[in-house]
Amino acid sequence: MIASSRATRPESFSTPPEKPKKKHLANCPFCSGNEEQTPPEVFAIRAPGSLPDTKGWKVRVVPNKFPALQNEGLFLPDTEERGIYRLKPALGHHEVIIHSPDHNNTIAQMELHDLELVLRVYQDRLVVLSQDPRVVSVVIIINQGREAGASIEHPHSQLFTLPMIAPRLKLELDKMESYRKEHGECLICSMIENERSQGDRLVAENEHFLAFCPFASRAPFEMYIVPKKHQDAFDQADEAQLQSLGRMLKFLFSRLQERLGDPPYNAFLHSRPLQGRKRDYHWHFVIMPKISTVAGFEFGTDIMIDVVEPEAAAEFLR
Amino acid sequence: MIASSRATRPESFSTPPEKPKKKHLANCPFCSGNEEQTPPEVFAIRAPGSLPDTKGWKVRVVPNKFPALQNEGLFLPDTEERGIYRLKPALGHHEVIIHSPDHNNTIAQMELHDLELVLRVYQDRLVVLSQDPRVVSVVIIINQGREAGASIEHPHSQLFTLPMIAPRLKLELDKMESYRKEHGECLICSMIENERSQGDRLVAENEHFLAFCPFASRAPFEMYIVPKKHQDAFDQADEAQLQSLGRMLKFLFSRLQERLGDPPYNAFLHSRPLQGRKRDYHWHFVIMPKISTVAGFEFGTDIMIDVVEPEAAAEFLR
Repeated sequence: MIASSRATRPESFSTPPEKPKKKHLANCPFCSGNEEQTPPEVFAIRAPGSLPDTKGWKVRVVPNKFPALQNEGLFLPDTEERGIYRLKPALGHHEVIIHSPDHNNTIAQMELHDLELVLRVYQDRLVVLSQDPRVVSVVIIINQGREAGASIEHPHSQLFTLPMIAPRLKLELDKMESYRKEHGECLICSMIENERSQGDRLVAENEHFLAFCPFASRAPFEMYIVPKKHQDAFDQADEAQLQSLGRMLKFLFSRLQERLGDPPYNAFLHSRPLQGRKRDYHWHFVIMPKISTVAGFEFGTDIMIDVVEPEAAAEFLR
Repeated sequence: MIASSRATRPESFSTPPEKPKKKHLANCPFCSGNEEQTPPEVFAIRAPGSLPDTKGWKVRVVPNKFPALQNEGLFLPDTEERGIYRLKPALGHHEVIIHSPDHNNTIAQMELHDLELVLRVYQDRLVVLSQDPRVVSVVIIINQGREAGASIEHPHSQLFTLPMIAPRLKLELDKMESYRKEHGECLICSMIENERSQGDRLVAENEHFLAFCPFASRAPFEMYIVPKKHQDAFDQADEAQLQSLGRMLKFLFSRLQERLGDPPYNAFLHSRPLQGRKRDYHWHFVIMPKISTVAGFEFGTDIMIDVVEPEAAAEFLR
């Protein structure tokens, strides 16, 4: 529900950027030199000869110290009955991908080469974890800033594997299936065509990616970043695409910083499920600056109120 | 998804109660004496002889000054096409029900008689607005506290009418229909029976209502308050039920204050849709203390992570 009369102009959401952060904090578990403050790493891009869980890494992956899912248990247990309800164990992986050894190295600040390494680690972890037969779907997210739910300030992503197709992924698969049936086309490919020809929700375009504020966006300044090539899984993206995505992300987060003062944000990467029948999909990356609050109306209706028209948001960010 | 290992004990969410608030604020548009700071009232319970938009009221209803929906336009316009998308105007009412002339009169503090008046006004407004042929469904919500999305501190509810069945209401209607088909019973009546016999999620019970932390609750300390009598619409509740509901709400908000230090919260009332084919429903009231943040994982999956088991939450609140 777009309720732009509730807000004034997009620039009313602009805040002064936060004061510069230090490059290193003694008590940050994700800073270089504090490797013993996290569980042992499961993967890292490191200088030749450097030892695991010591300095010398560029990107580092560790299990979440307080995981939302448990990855013990070899087999998926059956659904259990409890009174009129059913439950099953939340079996899955919950990993933290630390973007950089430096505390203040946000995506807007990162060197392109280092940002590409993060994206390559995304791919590597997806491929490795997809070997686990219990993994049905995967989502990679970024929470940046306390208001956006980040408990640690140091830039990082979180990778979750789920023993089911996430409900939102299922919704997208269903919508894409019915769209394909009706129009003979991929829904996201149609969105790309539509956004390019209409232009008013477009934020940026480069060789391989389009970034736009989606029609009926859920939140102010929400952006979709989609590969122009029809591609169902993120790990299919080649070197050239990853470089292009890195440039696009750096550009968009730089724009958010310039225009809105570096707002806290949530972001997530959607890729096709790893199991189940082969269905049409088109992977994408979503950025949602944390500006509004999910409150009584949203919980009670499952409708989101967006106080900035996506067309006005796109114009402001372009 | 219940991830209780992420948190410690329920009491870890307890915070010291906020410092006492003043009874009257000169710049609060909802305080008695400041009636000219809101749009003209559409309804009020007033002392005999007192004029609209002046002092002397107990409960006051005004249109929201920054409405999320517009209620101009006599007829529901057709759906409009825009590129590959469809939209229609968000036609509806967005009213504010001011609980009391006093700024500090939270539900936990209210006199029972005054709280009953608020509930009676809920019913009155539902009945009046249901006369509007454009109204398909209705939700009444409370946001209390800035972190829970309340822009005004003075206790109030918001009533929204929608030109459609809200998606969450539709989900409930569908689930209740399939449950009735399979079990020949109302889902919520079964939940009542189940919670009373299991007991570990029960928070309180009185003559007409049961309060419990729902199985697989969406948020820590979430509570459902359901009428024990099968009743589809809130406006069917009689005098005795309203009194009973008032006592229950005052008790639950007092417990939240004692045990958790008066947390910010969202709450909503669900009643059956006003239009469409007659379907099984059972109205209910939901309280969600604002403790967790909807973040990247929740937006990316449509799964909520709850870090307190509802059984532990119920025990803590009992």
